[in-house]
Amino acid sequence: MPYELYYWDGIQGRGEFIRLALEDAGAKYIDKCRSSTGTQVMMEFLKGSHGHDHMPFAPPFLKDGELVVSHVANILFYLGPKLGLVPEDEKSRLIANGLQLTITDFVSEAHDTHHPISTGDYYEDQKTEAKARSTAFIKDRIPKFLGYFERMLSTSPSDEGFILGNGLTYVDLSLFQVMEGLHYAFPKAMKASEGSYPRLAALREKVSKRPNIAAYLKSGRRLPFSESGIFRHYPELDLGD
Amino acid sequence: MPYELYYWDGIQGRGEFIRLALEDAGAKYIDKCRSSTGTQVMMEFLKGSHGHDHMPFAPPFLKDGELVVSHVANILFYLGPKLGLVPEDEKSRLIANGLQLTITDFVSEAHDTHHPISTGDYYEDQKTEAKARSTAFIKDRIPKFLGYFERMLSTSPSDEGFILGNGLTYVDLSLFQVMEGLHYAFPKAMKASEGSYPRLAALREKVSKRPNIAAYLKSGRRLPFSESGIFRHYPELDLGD
Repeated sequence: MPYELYYWDGIQGRGEFIRLALEDAGAKYIDKCRSSTGTQVMMEFLKGSHGHDHMPFAPPFLKDGELVVSHVANILFYLGPKLGLVPEDEKSRLIANGLQLTITDFVSEAHDTHHPISTGDYYEDQKTEAKARSTAFIKDRIPKFLGYFERMLSTSPSDEGFILGNGLTYVDLSLFQVMEGLHYAFPKAMKASEGSYPRLAALREKVSKRPNIAAYLKSGRRLPFSESGIFRHYPELDLGD
Repeated sequence: MPYELYYWDGIQGRGEFIRLALEDAGAKYIDKCRSSTGTQVMMEFLKGSHGHDHMPFAPPFLKDGELVVSHVANILFYLGPKLGLVPEDEKSRLIANGLQLTITDFVSEAHDTHHPISTGDYYEDQKTEAKARSTAFIKDRIPKFLGYFERMLSTSPSDEGFILGNGLTYVDLSLFQVMEGLHYAFPKAMKASEGSYPRLAALREKVSKRPNIAAYLKSGRRLPFSESGIFRHYPELDLGD
């Protein structure tokens, strides 16, 4: 039975971290909301129509038979061993999960650059505050997070440039997506700091060339970045010239 | 060997979710940074002096022998079965983890009510934006999150008022802490919405009376809420009269 991924239609968003893992592994899955009735089916879960154990707070969530798993890091923790995207031992899984949760925090902060006041209001209603938050994000937060991942890559026992010791993990795929998203949203800032993160740049390149990922990125299943997602390109929020 | 908890000295913060689990279970642990040299020891981990596998991004982290586990939800996922604070089966653990990650997101939003622009700047430098974010938090986000947890409690198979079916879990302890924190930070808003969350109110009461928790809350180990933590009481951010 294929996995069923539930996530808002039309955007990469947080669902993309799951898609990349499923695609790299060549797993069978249905991206439910890309069918005409999928979103309605998803809303039934969120409303609680399927009961306590099948009532996630928000998408993305994954349905695998009778099991419903919610939150990106939790889904990847669950899928990791099944897809061969994390070593099976407890220590590796806990370290991978800690890294994935650091990515979760970073992605949440990337989202808040364009919505620092209220997710319920339009970007246009919080542009001044978005500029202030983006300035701090570029100055302090990108270096703090990317600097950390760069250090983790530089001290990794992997001789292939991955963040854990035993080949590629789902964390590497998520770091690829973070780098793609940041380059989309803040091209000037990322260009200016290019030399600071050589291992992240190499990882991004390496992941993009994996056969299943390269095929996915060229396919219609890879939605484009847009100003409806987490990573948004508003030129006025990027570094100035 | 006792567990070693590493977290910023002097505040409850995110460390408190771990303390409550350890205290309820009566587990032996050392709150490392409450000794004179603890913070220095913690900083060595964060700087990477102990190598790749012992280099968390941020506190809290837990050291158990040679294992270092970071992020609240990850630590609780690890400790849960050892402390008898989650059922052992995979499904229950994944559901508990999903709930804990929803709490993580909520706590992060509670933090951003007083720091909507930059964690590196003082509250006083972002008071206007903090008021706007707090207004949206009280109007939209508290009802969304607490409404969800209330629904999860109301549909839970537990006949004792816990959020999963098989007795108290670490998620219940974390929900207690969230309710405590919200009542501290936004007393007027919480008073005004009192009738909307009867099951959360009952859970808060029930947890506070558990013998180990009651003893902990009266002890010097329970730090007070303060304007250095996640939940801060700035009267100007609360509902007006």
